[in-house]
Amino acid sequence: MNNKSRLKSINGFKSIYPDEWIKLQYVQKIVEKTVESFGFKRISTPSIERRSLYEVKPPWSEGLISQTFSFFDNQKNFLTLIPEQTPTRARMVQELKKIELPIRWYDTSKRWRQEDKVKNDRAKEFWQTDIDVIGCNSVESDAEILACSACIYKNLGLDKEVEISINDRKLLENILFSAGVKLSDCYTAVKIVDDKEKISKTEFYKRFKKINLTKDRIDFIYKAISLNGLIIDCVKEINALNQEIAEKSSKILKRFIRLSELLKWYGIYDMCKLDLSIARGSFYTGIIFEISDKNKNLGALSGGGRYDWLISMYGKRNLPAIGFGFGYMGTMEKLKECKLLNSSSSKSDIFVSCENPQKNYKMAIELVNILRKEGCVAEVDIIGKHDDTDRFKVFILFKNNFYKNSIAEIIVKGKKKIIKINDFYSFSKKLRTSQK
Amino acid sequence: MNNKSRLKSINGFKSIYPDEWIKLQYVQKIVEKTVESFGFKRISTPSIERRSLYEVKPPWSEGLISQTFSFFDNQKNFLTLIPEQTPTRARMVQELKKIELPIRWYDTSKRWRQEDKVKNDRAKEFWQTDIDVIGCNSVESDAEILACSACIYKNLGLDKEVEISINDRKLLENILFSAGVKLSDCYTAVKIVDDKEKISKTEFYKRFKKINLTKDRIDFIYKAISLNGLIIDCVKEINALNQEIAEKSSKILKRFIRLSELLKWYGIYDMCKLDLSIARGSFYTGIIFEISDKNKNLGALSGGGRYDWLISMYGKRNLPAIGFGFGYMGTMEKLKECKLLNSSSSKSDIFVSCENPQKNYKMAIELVNILRKEGCVAEVDIIGKHDDTDRFKVFILFKNNFYKNSIAEIIVKGKKKIIKINDFYSFSKKLRTSQK
Repeated sequence: MNNKSRLKSINGFKSIYPDEWIKLQYVQKIVEKTVESFGFKRISTPSIERRSLYEVKPPWSEGLISQTFSFFDNQKNFLTLIPEQTPTRARMVQELKKIELPIRWYDTSKRWRQEDKVKNDRAKEFWQTDIDVIGCNSVESDAEILACSACIYKNLGLDKEVEISINDRKLLENILFSAGVKLSDCYTAVKIVDDKEKISKTEFYKRFKKINLTKDRIDFIYKAISLNGLIIDCVKEINALNQEIAEKSSKILKRFIRLSELLKWYGIYDMCKLDLSIARGSFYTGIIFEISDKNKNLGALSGGGRYDWLISMYGKRNLPAIGFGFGYMGTMEKLKECKLLNSSSSKSDIFVSCENPQKNYKMAIELVNILRKEGCVAEVDIIGKHDDTDRFKVFILFKNNFYKNSIAEIIVKGKKKIIKINDFYSFSKKLRTSQK
Repeated sequence: MNNKSRLKSINGFKSIYPDEWIKLQYVQKIVEKTVESFGFKRISTPSIERRSLYEVKPPWSEGLISQTFSFFDNQKNFLTLIPEQTPTRARMVQELKKIELPIRWYDTSKRWRQEDKVKNDRAKEFWQTDIDVIGCNSVESDAEILACSACIYKNLGLDKEVEISINDRKLLENILFSAGVKLSDCYTAVKIVDDKEKISKTEFYKRFKKINLTKDRIDFIYKAISLNGLIIDCVKEINALNQEIAEKSSKILKRFIRLSELLKWYGIYDMCKLDLSIARGSFYTGIIFEISDKNKNLGALSGGGRYDWLISMYGKRNLPAIGFGFGYMGTMEKLKECKLLNSSSSKSDIFVSCENPQKNYKMAIELVNILRKEGCVAEVDIIGKHDDTDRFKVFILFKNNFYKNSIAEIIVKGKKKIIKINDFYSFSKKLRTSQK
């Protein structure tokens, strides 16, 4: 490796400069304000965990483990940069001394995955906001997580652009079982459904044939998981589709009816639909959902679901939980596409300079002292450059003859003014007010 | 390793729960508001860099490299979790397409070091806010960084508790050279001075003898670096101490005189002193400083300095720079000691519940919808528990007979009220206003 590439950043890791950061921060603030209004409290987790934390999950999470950054520390602990936060939260719930239910936690931080050796430019470091309700398995908590997720997209102005596709993991399993999938093949079958959008119909059939399903049974699965629409309509269709599934899933379907009521009260029913092809990760046990671009250009932007047994794998406490992970990457792309990211620059509002620093710099410092104390963002000249008047809304120049003639030159949005020192303090007060 | 310890967190990594997070967040917000008022713009850097980024520094940074978490990715890149951010910023300056000087950058994020195999409970993951002025070597930029650092501690209420100890790296080197330290031993000598507080006087002498200094020359160094006091007084003492040093350092001393003027205008002169024993890291080239607890219980809380050649090591741009790293760990301890960390809990203000969810939950959701839209933090009951009235400032219970008698029971700070539905909206409006 030559010297230049030795000092370059690594593919998949982004250095974010100020103009890009304010866009990310704008989105983060809306996300966080929304989840906080629902009563979610912020935690902060380590970025590194023991690798064994990720080994308690069901077999087909293995793909995830192989994508992690893992290494040994100087104590020979085998560690992993967190690829997701659910195992960490399970650990934190188990390590809590006193517990008050329900727990509502959120956090915005980075996750790391080296997804693919081939597609080397894929993001390996990405921001995510995770919210969880822990210790509660009511349909009201399902509705709350969905409402909170939907509200985030509403508050971002994307409610017309995205849709929330809901399914229930047990309902999907009931469909698979009644089509003859064996219990031991369940994860494989769920994975095929999960990959449905990525693979051809031929491949879909081929993979189900491998677990010994006949064509007509695969036809049945294909037809069943193609069901989607408004919750109430879809529940009716499931009832009509197959009596065995309807009976085995009657509790789930009743819960969907109640859920649809709750979603109406939250004002988000029309953003949601049932979609029986939604499958998601291995540890979900109940309702699952994905938020995606209606035009399907960007795939799933965010997602979540209920995981009622996972926490018990990490200690004595056995608590149900439901969570949602807000993904910044896809959502930011969608916001850019819709021109919903404010293009306000990261520049400061006020700049204070002086022609003769030896004489007038004291005045400049004293002015910025006041402005900053009042909450303004004010730069003072440290470089002796005072011809760059366009970069700031307000540009203040103490002229060379400031002390003699008691005047400063002030340029507000390109318009020049000369101000007497006697008027200066009333001017700067006006300035402080107008900048806030 | 048994199953239990396999799932435990690692020593030195902290899981932060909500009540602790609001304390950290309170400090972060003050730090960030302060640096933003000076015009610093936020960036966000990768948490991982090529290890070679840390290999361009002078030899006695090697200690730092050996303390990093380093590992190979699946592309066989040798990577490092960032132990500090200066090399990253140097890289980012070199990778910028267009550059406008001066650059003022800040960022709050995590750093990682496995400092010591023995003291296994030392923090290995810690938060830091770094600020830098890049592209400017004026004394005004030195003063700005010092003023910004001091303002942070002022705004935290710690200005009476901390002091800023200032030195100049070249001045220290001039002292060492005039005492006979050879150029090739310069780093070793600076390191001995840097360790002065940690080692005994005997050890101090022993280590200088190893680089062939006689006792009277070490006496001279010891006396010189023991100088400390207000800047102006100290400059006089240096002038009186030794003519050779005074002459070789005349530019530095003049700069200190101008600096003391600037610090007075910023209103922070009395928080600062010259302390010739301050040495700091290897890459500094001019002014260096540390902010420490006046009682010396906690050592250096934060520090920084000028590094005029480092950026040029990372590419074609040759830009001077000065930076400051705000350390959260020590400062948080000091704030706790001074009882300056607000102990406000992370609990939500408003809780809405109902005795009969089947009948009244719609009302509850509609109320929280309004409250949240207005910016309130309002929890809705998802668990059917409505006897826990003490946990919230405002507890609203829709009684079973709400629809019949049109009343809700409302408990505000422990006091129970019964409210008619006709009065409810005016009440909830009052509530919204009072909670904001």
